[in-house]
Amino acid sequence: MASVDKSIHPTASGRALKTVEEHSRPAGSDELVFYAGWFCPFVQRVWLALEEKHIPYQYKEENPYKKDADFLEVSPKGLVPAIKWRGKPLHESLVILNFLEDAYADTPPLLPKDPYARAQAALAIDHVSKAVVPAFYRLLQRQDAEEQADARTELEGALRRFGEMADVEGPFFAGGGVGMADLVCAPWVARFPILEKHRGWDASGISPRFSRWMSAITARPAYVATLSEPERYEEVYGRYLRDESHSAVAQSTRAGRDLP
Amino acid sequence: MASVDKSIHPTASGRALKTVEEHSRPAGSDELVFYAGWFCPFVQRVWLALEEKHIPYQYKEENPYKKDADFLEVSPKGLVPAIKWRGKPLHESLVILNFLEDAYADTPPLLPKDPYARAQAALAIDHVSKAVVPAFYRLLQRQDAEEQADARTELEGALRRFGEMADVEGPFFAGGGVGMADLVCAPWVARFPILEKHRGWDASGISPRFSRWMSAITARPAYVATLSEPERYEEVYGRYLRDESHSAVAQSTRAGRDLP
Repeated sequence: MASVDKSIHPTASGRALKTVEEHSRPAGSDELVFYAGWFCPFVQRVWLALEEKHIPYQYKEENPYKKDADFLEVSPKGLVPAIKWRGKPLHESLVILNFLEDAYADTPPLLPKDPYARAQAALAIDHVSKAVVPAFYRLLQRQDAEEQADARTELEGALRRFGEMADVEGPFFAGGGVGMADLVCAPWVARFPILEKHRGWDASGISPRFSRWMSAITARPAYVATLSEPERYEEVYGRYLRDESHSAVAQSTRAGRDLP
Repeated sequence: MASVDKSIHPTASGRALKTVEEHSRPAGSDELVFYAGWFCPFVQRVWLALEEKHIPYQYKEENPYKKDADFLEVSPKGLVPAIKWRGKPLHESLVILNFLEDAYADTPPLLPKDPYARAQAALAIDHVSKAVVPAFYRLLQRQDAEEQADARTELEGALRRFGEMADVEGPFFAGGGVGMADLVCAPWVARFPILEKHRGWDASGISPRFSRWMSAITARPAYVATLSEPERYEEVYGRYLRDESHSAVAQSTRAGRDLP
């Protein structure tokens, strides 16, 4: 998510605004600065992890209204999410998530200890990035009704597969506790209302396992704490729906290229 | 790399054949079975790690001449590399590499201990997959001279960036010892001769740092031990050069889609 459309609301709203205000104090030298866009689902992946792990952070909104001078030093491609940890920069949502696991080893773990279980979580994370997320954006941006129908089927299939890969009991991907595989998928669930309103989307028929998973992840306090008002998301995604967005992810989807 | 063109040589050759023969004994119940295609660079990533870590494995060639009955159970999309570890299947080269780190903790580590250094290696691995590898295949498959020139510039830039991200001293990515970032990039270096012969490729001018890295990685015994004869690679890549390959990676490159 690089240069963003200027019509978006400049700050988080609703419950997320409260979370932003609670994390406004400038970070101490050994604390973490979180460069975010309130509307960006890749940002929300990291935001969820910071909240689930109760890691102190300073939230800095990066958008055209409020770009920080040091931001491009921190994130060379100008993409959010990015962090500065003890002065050292990182970007890429999955790299940051794994870094938080390693650097904050005394916080609730988001990956299993068992090597094979970790690998199964890694496969689910890979599946979300390669199958779920691209299908979501295709459904959002395609203008042709038949292409939309194909994308709807594709997204349903990808989410059904996520449910099949998951621990049978659950309700979370790896079992009774929330983990990284849940957090990397959750932000797109938060954006389902856009698809419901404009693309005939209905996730309730995907599978009983997926429905159980959705209920569990959307009930997490971290999930609730990082959500802005529905109308504000409408403004952001309105442009995607008309295929007019200039964001990096929109351009990639339009061109049929890899997501940034 | 799913269904492969039938003209390829059915087995490894040269030095790699010796390695295959040394790993032909059926795996014990707590040993690892490695489902491979001798010509596949994604396979070679894992092969290099198995060799660097001295992990015992049974090598099984998966191609049209010699498909194992249990292969699709192990790798649902029919892709190599895949492994079976104590009867449990895994696929995806990067997932397998990270699994080997976790499951074989008493072998030479391929990732740094320090969390920030691990994250920097993860960014380099992400860069190889997102920037180096797609540019390689574009240069290989594009038929138009101008597109080839663009792809050459793109590949040079991606490899120069890899050198810039690396530890200044080196010679390997993370310093004096070989690591995962080196192994995920090395297989495409092994295929440079194809580009040199057919696409005017010359890696010597990329940067002094990249040249030092190339010398170091190509001198590793594991690298030498997983190379087949040059003429055999010519047969595989001849089809890519004429844009006639039906492999999964060739189809994705042709369509401008994500690599599988």
